[in-house]
Amino acid sequence: MKLATLKNGSRDGHLVVVSRDNSWALDASPVALTLQQALENWASAEPRLRLLADELNAGRAVGAFSFDATLAMAPLPRAYQWCDGSAFLSHGTLMQKAFNLKAHEGAELTPLMYQGAGDDFLGGREDIALPTEAQGIDFEGEFGVVVDEVPMGCSAEQALQHIKLIVQINDVSLRALAPREMVSGFGFLQAKPSSSFAPLAITPDELADAWRGGRVQLPLQVHWNGQWFGHPHGGEMNFHFGQLIAHAALTRRLRAGTVIGSGTVSNSDRSVGSACIAERRAIEMIEQGSAQTAFMRFGDQVHMEVLGADGQSLFGGIDQRVVQAKV
Amino acid sequence: MKLATLKNGSRDGHLVVVSRDNSWALDASPVALTLQQALENWASAEPRLRLLADELNAGRAVGAFSFDATLAMAPLPRAYQWCDGSAFLSHGTLMQKAFNLKAHEGAELTPLMYQGAGDDFLGGREDIALPTEAQGIDFEGEFGVVVDEVPMGCSAEQALQHIKLIVQINDVSLRALAPREMVSGFGFLQAKPSSSFAPLAITPDELADAWRGGRVQLPLQVHWNGQWFGHPHGGEMNFHFGQLIAHAALTRRLRAGTVIGSGTVSNSDRSVGSACIAERRAIEMIEQGSAQTAFMRFGDQVHMEVLGADGQSLFGGIDQRVVQAKV
Repeated sequence: MKLATLKNGSRDGHLVVVSRDNSWALDASPVALTLQQALENWASAEPRLRLLADELNAGRAVGAFSFDATLAMAPLPRAYQWCDGSAFLSHGTLMQKAFNLKAHEGAELTPLMYQGAGDDFLGGREDIALPTEAQGIDFEGEFGVVVDEVPMGCSAEQALQHIKLIVQINDVSLRALAPREMVSGFGFLQAKPSSSFAPLAITPDELADAWRGGRVQLPLQVHWNGQWFGHPHGGEMNFHFGQLIAHAALTRRLRAGTVIGSGTVSNSDRSVGSACIAERRAIEMIEQGSAQTAFMRFGDQVHMEVLGADGQSLFGGIDQRVVQAKV
Repeated sequence: MKLATLKNGSRDGHLVVVSRDNSWALDASPVALTLQQALENWASAEPRLRLLADELNAGRAVGAFSFDATLAMAPLPRAYQWCDGSAFLSHGTLMQKAFNLKAHEGAELTPLMYQGAGDDFLGGREDIALPTEAQGIDFEGEFGVVVDEVPMGCSAEQALQHIKLIVQINDVSLRALAPREMVSGFGFLQAKPSSSFAPLAITPDELADAWRGGRVQLPLQVHWNGQWFGHPHGGEMNFHFGQLIAHAALTRRLRAGTVIGSGTVSNSDRSVGSACIAERRAIEMIEQGSAQTAFMRFGDQVHMEVLGADGQSLFGGIDQRVVQAKV
């Protein structure tokens, strides 16, 4: 099942079911007005949403209308919690090597994770408005999951059962602001402006065999200004999503609608490229002695896509420009 | 005006107006069902809520009922954003001295702030359920503000105009988990379980002269298991709330209902005591060579109170026990 949230002038938008081929949409308001509402009542909402999806996919849905990704907000336009891991260790290893940083003790045992801001997510076709290019504007291609209620102390295996939806994320980052925030010990805040989400939140069964071991076993295709940038594979996550959820839930329950991110998709095979500029720059520093690639300029465009076995876009893709904020 | 949220079985509770003497409450649902809803429509909601408050304070409100703080949730039982500063520099200075840490460069110019979890706030009379005493359970007494929509790049002075409500917070912390998270550069996550809020969110005018310079100019009275622990004064904030909001809004807008915390209230005069155990332990390390005071045990109780000029509790106080979570 594929779900999306359409703009309707409200902060939380309007929930729709989307057909498997991303062409058609159907109002989901008889089941839930918003995705947050559906997640809070998932056990009863899910089967009813699936009935709508079945009608839509069979071409029998009354009231179906053409799905327009440019009218989509983030599936959850705002979330009460957004925690982003760094589950692909090859990314951290490259950054450490390039910047001559000390390796994190126990990095293979305990995932890195930061608490992000969930109050203002962007849709996958919306411009990313930022104050200045000087802050080192970067994209970060990620996978994410949305959970229902997760109890405190949940195990990694149990946590997998709480994954209700899978999403695709551009975790926009401001690299010039990150070092001060990392050294402070308080973590990212200004360095992590609003994150963006591809239009479709999908149930794990939509991935079929590509949802395995708590990981999205597919490459993430990244293009920057129309040029290939990378296609790292989601299967190389060193911590699976169940482990990330359990990490977040060690000392508190997670309320329904919490979003958990994988961190930048990154592979040990450098020939597959990267899902963020910072990592390409790190590779350049290691291989050529200095970074060659500059960060994003206003007007730049980033495209991120995940294709299923049938060549169909699974999440509806991310295609965004960076623009100067009107302040 | 004083506002509270009463339990009604829903996640966001039921908004009520509370009388100045904390004795009476009045259903606010004709104006807004929840505090979040009121904040999203503050310009129209505020004058109508004030009319209810005026009726209530004049003893003329039809339908007024006795206000019971034990039935209150956090004023915002969940928030789309919770950012907590560390605006009292004497706290950081003590911690650095005790643990022989390097001072943060530019600590007087740029506030420290972490992104917290807003999905599950506790009420000021609710038990704090945690998995184990071994994690170093601590309270942290703070002030906080709730804002309406704050534009990106907002100045500190402009930001003061976006403060709609003032709140009192117990930012529960797990000290044994903090060092690893601070060294990681990703900041606090497991070390910051659910925060707790005193029952009443109040408009700045309720503080009269004690709201000055973007600060709550009153002492925070802290007792632990019935023993005095400290009464540090809110006026010593090195960054005022407008500066904290502007810091958070540098690279993104803040959506209505964002909560911004002051960090542990702390004064340079050590005789006033502390608002968290970690700080008392730091002082012991500095003055006696080692920490004498242990962290909280299950069954321990913490009481935090702010009294107005008339001796009346401004926020309805925090009075909580720490208990073992049922996992």
